Amino acid sequence: MSKDDQASKDDPLFKSLIEQLKTLKTENMYESDFFLTWDKTEDELKSVWLMADILRHLRTKNISTKIFNSGLGISIFRDNSTRTRFSFVSACNLLGLAVQDLEEKKSQIAHGETVRETATMVSFMADVIGIRDDMYIGKGHKYQKEVSEAVTQGYKEGVLEQKPTLVNLQCDIDHPTQSMADALHIIHKLVGGVNNISQLRGKKIAMTWAYSPSYGKPLSVPQGVIGLLTRFGMEVCLAHPEGYEVMDDVVKLAKENAEKSGGKFTVTHDMKEAFKDADIVYPKSWAPFKAMEERTDLYGKGDFKGIEELEKRLLKQNAEHKDWTASEDMMKLTKEGKGLYLHCLPADISGVSCKEGEVDASVFDRFREDLYKEASYKPYIIAAMIYLAKIKEPVKGLEKIMKEDIKRKTEI
Amino acid sequence: MSKDDQASKDDPLFKSLIEQLKTLKTENMYESDFFLTWDKTEDELKSVWLMADILRHLRTKNISTKIFNSGLGISIFRDNSTRTRFSFVSACNLLGLAVQDLEEKKSQIAHGETVRETATMVSFMADVIGIRDDMYIGKGHKYQKEVSEAVTQGYKEGVLEQKPTLVNLQCDIDHPTQSMADALHIIHKLVGGVNNISQLRGKKIAMTWAYSPSYGKPLSVPQGVIGLLTRFGMEVCLAHPEGYEVMDDVVKLAKENAEKSGGKFTVTHDMKEAFKDADIVYPKSWAPFKAMEERTDLYGKGDFKGIEELEKRLLKQNAEHKDWTASEDMMKLTKEGKGLYLHCLPADISGVSCKEGEVDASVFDRFREDLYKEASYKPYIIAAMIYLAKIKEPVKGLEKIMKEDIKRKTEI
Amino acid sequence: MSKDDQASKDDPLFKSLIEQLKTLKTENMYESDFFLTWDKTEDELKSVWLMADILRHLRTKNISTKIFNSGLGISIFRDNSTRTRFSFVSACNLLGLAVQDLEEKKSQIAHGETVRETATMVSFMADVIGIRDDMYIGKGHKYQKEVSEAVTQGYKEGVLEQKPTLVNLQCDIDHPTQSMADALHIIHKLVGGVNNISQLRGKKIAMTWAYSPSYGKPLSVPQGVIGLLTRFGMEVCLAHPEGYEVMDDVVKLAKENAEKSGGKFTVTHDMKEAFKDADIVYPKSWAPFKAMEERTDLYGKGDFKGIEELEKRLLKQNAEHKDWTASEDMMKLTKEGKGLYLHCLPADISGVSCKEGEVDASVFDRFREDLYKEASYKPYIIAAMIYLAKIKEPVKGLEKIMKEDIKRKTEI
Repeated sequence: MSKDDQASKDDPLFKSLIEQLKTLKTENMYESDFFLTWDKTEDELKSVWLMADILRHLRTKNISTKIFNSGLGISIFRDNSTRTRFSFVSACNLLGLAVQDLEEKKSQIAHGETVRETATMVSFMADVIGIRDDMYIGKGHKYQKEVSEAVTQGYKEGVLEQKPTLVNLQCDIDHPTQSMADALHIIHKLVGGVNNISQLRGKKIAMTWAYSPSYGKPLSVPQGVIGLLTRFGMEVCLAHPEGYEVMDDVVKLAKENAEKSGGKFTVTHDMKEAFKDADIVYPKSWAPFKAMEERTDLYGKGDFKGIEELEKRLLKQNAEHKDWTASEDMMKLTKEGKGLYLHCLPADISGVSCKEGEVDASVFDRFREDLYKEASYKPYIIAAMIYLAKIKEPVKGLEKIMKEDIKRKTEI
Repeated sequence: MSKDDQASKDDPLFKSLIEQLKTLKTENMYESDFFLTWDKTEDELKSVWLMADILRHLRTKNISTKIFNSGLGISIFRDNSTRTRFSFVSACNLLGLAVQDLEEKKSQIAHGETVRETATMVSFMADVIGIRDDMYIGKGHKYQKEVSEAVTQGYKEGVLEQKPTLVNLQCDIDHPTQSMADALHIIHKLVGGVNNISQLRGKKIAMTWAYSPSYGKPLSVPQGVIGLLTRFGMEVCLAHPEGYEVMDDVVKLAKENAEKSGGKFTVTHDMKEAFKDADIVYPKSWAPFKAMEERTDLYGKGDFKGIEELEKRLLKQNAEHKDWTASEDMMKLTKEGKGLYLHCLPADISGVSCKEGEVDASVFDRFREDLYKEASYKPYIIAAMIYLAKIKEPVKGLEKIMKEDIKRKTEI
Repeated sequence: MSKDDQASKDDPLFKSLIEQLKTLKTENMYESDFFLTWDKTEDELKSVWLMADILRHLRTKNISTKIFNSGLGISIFRDNSTRTRFSFVSACNLLGLAVQDLEEKKSQIAHGETVRETATMVSFMADVIGIRDDMYIGKGHKYQKEVSEAVTQGYKEGVLEQKPTLVNLQCDIDHPTQSMADALHIIHKLVGGVNNISQLRGKKIAMTWAYSPSYGKPLSVPQGVIGLLTRFGMEVCLAHPEGYEVMDDVVKLAKENAEKSGGKFTVTHDMKEAFKDADIVYPKSWAPFKAMEERTDLYGKGDFKGIEELEKRLLKQNAEHKDWTASEDMMKLTKEGKGLYLHCLPADISGVSCKEGEVDASVFDRFREDLYKEASYKPYIIAAMIYLAKIKEPVKGLEKIMKEDIKRKTEI
């Protein structure tokens, strides 16, 4: 028996995950970017989840998963961030990359400087670029594409010695590192692992709007969730008050996904209908897509008074729907009253972070451990995306890691 | 002779330090936090000093002391910082950790978000968390405890794959990385090393207030010094004008320490009495504890006008004590006129950084090299605290480092 | 044949670069700082270019060039920066150093705190310090010297365990990492490599002023270029409108350099004369030296109204010279209409980043790939400067790297 076989034999979980990974077609992940989950095949999505589970497992076994001896991850946050910032830094660190943040305020980025120029200038030794740009409709995804094209061209022209992989840390359309982490949490909680993913078939998830005393929360979370979970035969119910529609294209996509996967996708304006018998509920505030388009226009025109008025109008509109909240009573409607509560955090908790908000304090408290676990998948999801884009033969790469067995922390 | 023995034989200082470390009971340091020096036994404190000396020695020998192959140190500075920030980064780097700063301003920390949530969200791959929070009475230490409890719980629940160690980089009660660095400087200057620590018995240190044209300097330095140095049989004299009392609990503790250790602890309102025959003087401005309590209350009420008035009152009160300064004349009172001058830096130097301040320029200049040496222990003290919390058998860990003899910088 | 010989044989480019490096006298680079290119001998400058080429070549071959197992690079940016910041971080990462930025705003740097103190306090584990300080005449270079003296003293006194190397990332006099990157680009474009550097003899470069709608761009770029390129027998023509003189000392130096090297140095107020038959043109806005001196004085006096008036006057003066621009017509004047266009970026592009600027959009676009390549040398130039200051025998160091053949990224 070779040393490799021995290592696997001693670690049946690792062996099982590797065996699953072997069955998937993942070649196209190599040197690719991760913009939207719907750019990826089911095999590719599964490979990210398996890879995340493997990397986490190796960490618990104190085995180093550094695939880079040196190199940089570049982060660009066009909005404040804690969870995603630390998740990205953690993912990079896990693989051996140092992180340099491009703080646009501290930068000498000239007025009118092209995205191509800035992207190239920060990427001379970049292996990964993570971008969060979710503020304006029609902007974030476009910007990420431009950055990716710039560095691809820079690599082809010999300006860059490597092509950095782009990871979407949230855009105006999708929030794939969030939805993939949410999904991996669901997979572990409901069916026990990626190998049982077919058992998700028929499970009901309610992706619902919820009241928050704030304005303009991004649409990428609900869009990401309905765009992803409709692909695995689930019954996905999107619920929101009238006027809180999400992006048409994503609704259309969710419908198509559901048809293809043998699942179901419905839209309702009744929160109770959504919660009814749901295995999972994901109540969360977001801004109406149309209003966000309006804001983007106003911003483009520099009409800040208009933005202020829009904000007032939206807050007023919000206040009419305070009953959209994950109260104890609402939770009783879920499957056997035991539906799993999800949130991307931070949540607006009634009586804690605000007077009236997205969720009752007692509901949040009951699910606190689950919610933190849900969040804890994100660094591994990001690392998995990077790993699969950087290592041509992921299984062999993992076998090498297992064989070398380099300790992350000295064991004495 | 084994290679280990050979290495030690070739390096008698290393051998001597290791031998001293072997005699100490340090098991409880493993997986512990470092909040206050008085949480620790004398053996534990000595182990930190020895470890700091060993790590520094290995660095001068160009031997890498990385015990982490990857991993993160998280820093949270709730007040501006240069020395401590760079000391923490240096300590983490010395052990193989990358540092990610939690800048609360750039973070998406929700209004009302719990300490537990933020602490968990930044710690998915954190091995260490260093916190400076010294602004408000009754807050800093409490906050650090909450963070530690949160990540301990996160680790138990499987949300975090490791339990980060908390290092107090200054709180409202103690400033252990400062006082431990100060003490190691004293140990080297006065008695030549940790092995001679018993010779500190009877040495006199004057921890005295000094005038500064500024307001509200933290109490953690004088409290840290009297709480620590009373444990080694020294004669510790705390001196300040009336009205500049420090925290009662720490004064009580200092008295008890002195009794137990066979030392002496006195409080006086006469700076000359304190300086008289002192082996060491540590003249430094601080705010009255009662005034800091008042400020904390005013801050809690959002009474910024009240804070302004308090500040004016304190500055006026300060100005009555301009004679509390480490002048050349005062220094002549110290033991043979050669007492060692300490300061945590930056100092308010008369005629340099202010018109009248804590110390004469000529005194400061004469001790400049000493003061920088004093400061230079801090990164090693922090690294020692982390090392002892992370390596179960510190001596074996060091022997491994010595045996492997990995160069920090290529030697060619 | 030894493994070393084999490695070199398999890589003729590496072998050739190493052979060239062997012929150069570089001993004095060891443990030195890099302030100004004119502090260095021609051999030393060539060694930096060769080293940069070698490091870049090794990176394309996926060979790790880490010479540090741990250690810190400290950056101090007293002006906004993207390109230089990322170049410094990249260079440090390439060699194995983590970077910690000293953000003076977030620091507890006391009023009146000496440069010596701050420099020492941030350098306990610093191997390199990179500084950009180009805002005020007579300040930047002086500050860098003070920092270097402080850490040298700190090292001698045993406060620091290593002497950090200072790299000038732009001062009021020179911008060596820029001019050296510019030169390496010229060397590759015009003569094919450092071994053919003698073929630069007689080539004409026009370092010319160009109009920009902004105020006060640093003089270090034109000064750096004329101070460096006059040393290799080139014909260097400095052109600017009357009143836009650069520093006298550097003009004098450029003249002397040209005499020694058998080149030519001329100054003209006619942009066309400069462009005529030029092999290379470098049109770029800068502020008059005299005006920058005036600003420095006003700043010293805190006369912000005076600064505002100066700014207005300069913008008005600028506007009289809008014809100083790298238009298509101007480019036709260059050697066979094919002169190489250089810029340190970001450029003020007419009709793109401003109405009228330094260069026509079509000219900029035609040279975009070249300009990005030019910029891409900077990280390798910085890494080369650090490497040569840190490794006593650079050739042996490289042979070790080649022999060990550690992969930067796992190859699977």
